[in-house]
Amino acid sequence: MHRTKVRIVEEALDANNTIARANRDDFDSADVRVVNLMSAPGAGKTALLERVAAELPGIRVGVLEGDVQGSMDADRLAALHVPVTQINTGAGFGGECHLDANMVRSALPGLPLDEIDLLVIENVGNLVCPAEFRVGEDARIMVSAVTEGEEKPLKYPLMFRACELVLVNKVDLLPHLDFDLERFLHNLDAVHPGVERLLVSAKTGEGIDEWRDWLVRAAGRVGAHA
Amino acid sequence: MHRTKVRIVEEALDANNTIARANRDDFDSADVRVVNLMSAPGAGKTALLERVAAELPGIRVGVLEGDVQGSMDADRLAALHVPVTQINTGAGFGGECHLDANMVRSALPGLPLDEIDLLVIENVGNLVCPAEFRVGEDARIMVSAVTEGEEKPLKYPLMFRACELVLVNKVDLLPHLDFDLERFLHNLDAVHPGVERLLVSAKTGEGIDEWRDWLVRAAGRVGAHA
Repeated sequence: MHRTKVRIVEEALDANNTIARANRDDFDSADVRVVNLMSAPGAGKTALLERVAAELPGIRVGVLEGDVQGSMDADRLAALHVPVTQINTGAGFGGECHLDANMVRSALPGLPLDEIDLLVIENVGNLVCPAEFRVGEDARIMVSAVTEGEEKPLKYPLMFRACELVLVNKVDLLPHLDFDLERFLHNLDAVHPGVERLLVSAKTGEGIDEWRDWLVRAAGRVGAHA
Repeated sequence: MHRTKVRIVEEALDANNTIARANRDDFDSADVRVVNLMSAPGAGKTALLERVAAELPGIRVGVLEGDVQGSMDADRLAALHVPVTQINTGAGFGGECHLDANMVRSALPGLPLDEIDLLVIENVGNLVCPAEFRVGEDARIMVSAVTEGEEKPLKYPLMFRACELVLVNKVDLLPHLDFDLERFLHNLDAVHPGVERLLVSAKTGEGIDEWRDWLVRAAGRVGAHA
């Protein structure tokens, strides 16, 4: 990159981090834990949330939905009587491909922070840019569907490194795919050794209890700020 | 968006279009047709190329591979004795999420334009930004895998509008999915009425003859510049 571009990029990321810290302070003040849920388009973020959002024992969940356009995912979650706030990123270019700290900050006034314990931010479907922008979250979770192939950790390493949990979704389809699970896990460990991972299926319910337990622990986590 | 940001974005897209036109002039001078192949990560771009790149009757194919990191897809195609040039976008941020005209321009000296008739540019896996940046191509093709769900045209409308052909891939998995093909096609027509579409499976070969025929026509197309 040209030096000017490097400087502009660094300044943009610095500014983002400053706003992300302000968001984090506001979440902390309200005693709300926050997870940032990321994946490629169609990996199953919303379906995995639908499985658990309304039934985390003793924990009130809220959702912040990031989409280029529309409110389809938000509508699905609202149907479960979970408070959902929508951010549409369509105002930038033909649509910003990620959430940044300022977009989340703009949504704060609409979030019922005093009525929830855990906020799940569902990011725009994209394996590149969402990993580059902290938004004030406590933890980052990424969903990788087995239909996407074994080599994804090697092709999008920043995303697989930037998370505390990898949900390997759609494992119900394994019998119908040429997907080598061992090779995927080997590739995952190559870019993020030992990262927590759960094999799940939003369709059959496999692994959903473990995913729910993980969120319960995340919601109760104190002093684990990165 | 702030007015300053709007201006910067517009200037960036104007500059991109200027470079895209220069690329197009160079492709035209070499009598090479160019298609820009786009999709979400893991939709099957490379697998669909593997099916046809080495056996287009009378047409010499070259490939320009865009990835954040690595050369796995390029290696797969080079194994078929197709000339492949790799662009890695990892130098920007944690990785640029799309190809732009300047990245393609930088790769031109390494492309054997006088030895090919059709250049396939395999873009970075992403349903947002690649649609915003012309790179000098004659046509744009997008791949949407049925595993990604029926609502993708409504969620990423710019991408589905920006292409001349939609390859609906992985149809071999339809019996194992809750995917309503009619609803997908209805959504597709809602954002891009009547756009050409082919139902394909890189795994079983379904629709591959039609995909090959489409590329043959694209390679022979003269005066069809958008």
